[in-house]
Amino acid sequence: MAAQLQAAVPHLRILDSAEERAAHSQDHTEDLQFLPDCVAMPENAQEVVAVMTWAHAHHISVTPAGAWTGLSGGALPVQGGISLSTKRLNRIVTIDELNHQIVVEPGVIVQEMQEAAEAKGLFYAVDPASRGTCTIGGNLAENSGGPRAVKYGVTKDWVLNLEVVLADGTLIETGANTLKNSTGYNLTQLMVGSEGTLGIITKATLKLLPLPPFNALLLVPFESASDACAAVAGLFRGGNQPSALEFMERSAIELAMVFTGDHSLALDTNTTAHLLIEVDAFQEPDLMPQLERIATTLERFNAGEPLMAMDAAGKDQLWNLRRKVGEAVKAHSTYKEEDTVVPRGHLPELLSAVKTTGAQFGFESICYGHAGDGNLHVNILKGNLTEEEWNNTLPKAIESIFKEVIRLGGTLSGEHGIGWVQKPFMHLRFSEAELALQRRIKNAFDPVHILNPDKILPPPVK
Amino acid sequence: MAAQLQAAVPHLRILDSAEERAAHSQDHTEDLQFLPDCVAMPENAQEVVAVMTWAHAHHISVTPAGAWTGLSGGALPVQGGISLSTKRLNRIVTIDELNHQIVVEPGVIVQEMQEAAEAKGLFYAVDPASRGTCTIGGNLAENSGGPRAVKYGVTKDWVLNLEVVLADGTLIETGANTLKNSTGYNLTQLMVGSEGTLGIITKATLKLLPLPPFNALLLVPFESASDACAAVAGLFRGGNQPSALEFMERSAIELAMVFTGDHSLALDTNTTAHLLIEVDAFQEPDLMPQLERIATTLERFNAGEPLMAMDAAGKDQLWNLRRKVGEAVKAHSTYKEEDTVVPRGHLPELLSAVKTTGAQFGFESICYGHAGDGNLHVNILKGNLTEEEWNNTLPKAIESIFKEVIRLGGTLSGEHGIGWVQKPFMHLRFSEAELALQRRIKNAFDPVHILNPDKILPPPVK
Repeated sequence: MAAQLQAAVPHLRILDSAEERAAHSQDHTEDLQFLPDCVAMPENAQEVVAVMTWAHAHHISVTPAGAWTGLSGGALPVQGGISLSTKRLNRIVTIDELNHQIVVEPGVIVQEMQEAAEAKGLFYAVDPASRGTCTIGGNLAENSGGPRAVKYGVTKDWVLNLEVVLADGTLIETGANTLKNSTGYNLTQLMVGSEGTLGIITKATLKLLPLPPFNALLLVPFESASDACAAVAGLFRGGNQPSALEFMERSAIELAMVFTGDHSLALDTNTTAHLLIEVDAFQEPDLMPQLERIATTLERFNAGEPLMAMDAAGKDQLWNLRRKVGEAVKAHSTYKEEDTVVPRGHLPELLSAVKTTGAQFGFESICYGHAGDGNLHVNILKGNLTEEEWNNTLPKAIESIFKEVIRLGGTLSGEHGIGWVQKPFMHLRFSEAELALQRRIKNAFDPVHILNPDKILPPPVK
Repeated sequence: MAAQLQAAVPHLRILDSAEERAAHSQDHTEDLQFLPDCVAMPENAQEVVAVMTWAHAHHISVTPAGAWTGLSGGALPVQGGISLSTKRLNRIVTIDELNHQIVVEPGVIVQEMQEAAEAKGLFYAVDPASRGTCTIGGNLAENSGGPRAVKYGVTKDWVLNLEVVLADGTLIETGANTLKNSTGYNLTQLMVGSEGTLGIITKATLKLLPLPPFNALLLVPFESASDACAAVAGLFRGGNQPSALEFMERSAIELAMVFTGDHSLALDTNTTAHLLIEVDAFQEPDLMPQLERIATTLERFNAGEPLMAMDAAGKDQLWNLRRKVGEAVKAHSTYKEEDTVVPRGHLPELLSAVKTTGAQFGFESICYGHAGDGNLHVNILKGNLTEEEWNNTLPKAIESIFKEVIRLGGTLSGEHGIGWVQKPFMHLRFSEAELALQRRIKNAFDPVHILNPDKILPPPVK
């Protein structure tokens, strides 16, 4: 396949050694592996157009991939074919200081983009834990969130316009570089979160905000994890507007300590959970009144003595522990992560349902995540279960948790996407009519099904 | 048609007298009139399902309509058939104080919804000028904005989930009642702004925020309209976050004074334009520092002495004048309104292009609108032009303005939608491939083209 593609697109960089194919076969989703036939590394939109035109003519699958940090298998080339890497589409095209906009190619690392904006006094708030390695293209594909979503929204809320190559190689623009737009169907928002199944994003215009230069962090211990969850809704009802509101079970923070080697934080014996709460401001004196109002609200939920971090070192330490929880869990045990999300007032019921399900099926779990959005990452641990027990009970346990999530008004994924691994559960959330409609949309974009095939949508029920 | 529909849906309220048909034939878009064959007034989603099932089977057009305040002809039944009124789908279903959500039917008046939320200390910020009469269903259909969009976003930014009846009568849900959602295609955002061409919304879950109880207004005069426009981007670059930032040419405010009979405001002779600037806050002491920072920034743009309104009467007076500009222009002259939007830093160039075009084609214009979003309502006045001159020059003048809008990175409509009247200009913004993709999406939802036919998308170029 590499030779034919090379003949069709002469200057395209193509990799097809066994090592390179293996290097483009796995993401951060458990231990799945799917080998592409070859890897295309276009360096501009015209090369993406050429790849898609050729692939479309020959009915070859193309699966776009960024930095392989995905957590639902979205970038895995499950049908082989071409893995289209965005690594060389990595230019920050412009930062428009007048209009507070940035134009980037999909392979730009999110943290680099944030820092480029900050250097101009501007702010891109979406801040996934993997920001140091993940790409904006991946964030757009999965509609990534992260801790600041609670105040500033998720990726979709920052996107004004996209340049996209369609399945047949047509280059389109989805919107305009304007803050408001009621001009035709919202193709921009349809593309965001579509996990590379509807088109390949080659350029994105994102809005920026003025950078709030000041922030402070509170780490708040609770004896009862349920109280910690209940405090989340309480904070918003009290009129507080934290810029992050994260929940961590004690075990999550303990694993992160082991993983990072940072044991300087002393956890009280009775503590079972923490909230990590950030506030930000344009003026430094505005921080303390926010922290005081939060502390007052938290008293009603039996919070312990908070640890306050105002300086960079203290804040970095706490954020580093929080960001490393995911990797720490992965290093600790075979696990399966569910990216559950419910209306945030129902977090206590969700947490309790996870623990009940664990007791029923015999597994341990570690829960943490973006509590302010009702987005709880549920990590089911294999622990001492045999391989057979694990394989037998896991699907039933997940189904049981998702049914409770849906009963609470929630859904399957808050920010990781459906990709490959959550596809079997889509029928729990959607009716067959709702899935059929999504299949018709897929067909409208990609009638021969070459773009990231077999993702998101399960096959129709016969 | 009424008799057959009645036979199929026995308890449905149907109107088909000449008066009732005429009463459902015109919106606020110029002087267009299209008569429906009959008007269906369902009172629940099941009746909408029954109407669509019948209409689909018989290939009868159905055009949903709310309060007829639309400004692009979106609700006009241009092919006759059934006008589906949402007037009786007007229940506020729940206000969820724990999760800050409201569930409403489409016929609820926006202001009533705002007030119901406020009574619980909650805030629905989208605030179109017609809020006292327009419905949330219409706002969802057109993705309405209004003055507060500059801080709080447009309708799409408040929608979590929709219940929708598809063209064939299938009832679906588009998302979940969660703040984050990466689960399948974003049908919610595709529906918002689709002007009733993809489905009929029968229920919407909207997020709410804690109500910021304090606000203040500044009316700032400028000798140069261009300076006023330039000050808009300057305010954001200065780190200010106004909750409204409106632009009005002197003639706009003068017409509103005539229309309302409120002449108590003394305009300085040299003033040619105003900015109306609102700030809001959770704590009253936070207002004045914001106003002071704004005033400091404005000095650099040759602003005159601002009029400050802190009390309810003063604020109501200023907002009332601003809200009545649209009706005042309509009462003053035959006119044509364009809902232009550009990146806000390009407002001075847009305003200048409108005036140059006017000089070229011999028309007067009145410009006003949501400057903070770059959304300028351009009102072209017939004035002393003969009917023939008006009909000849108008399409050329509009095309000339839109071409400049697009050159500046803008688009055809910021918040009024394309509907019927802007359809001929869609080819200025979209390539044939982009229009074809939107037609395929329409087909995926409505293959027999009965839902609000002939709207948004022009026919393919042969």
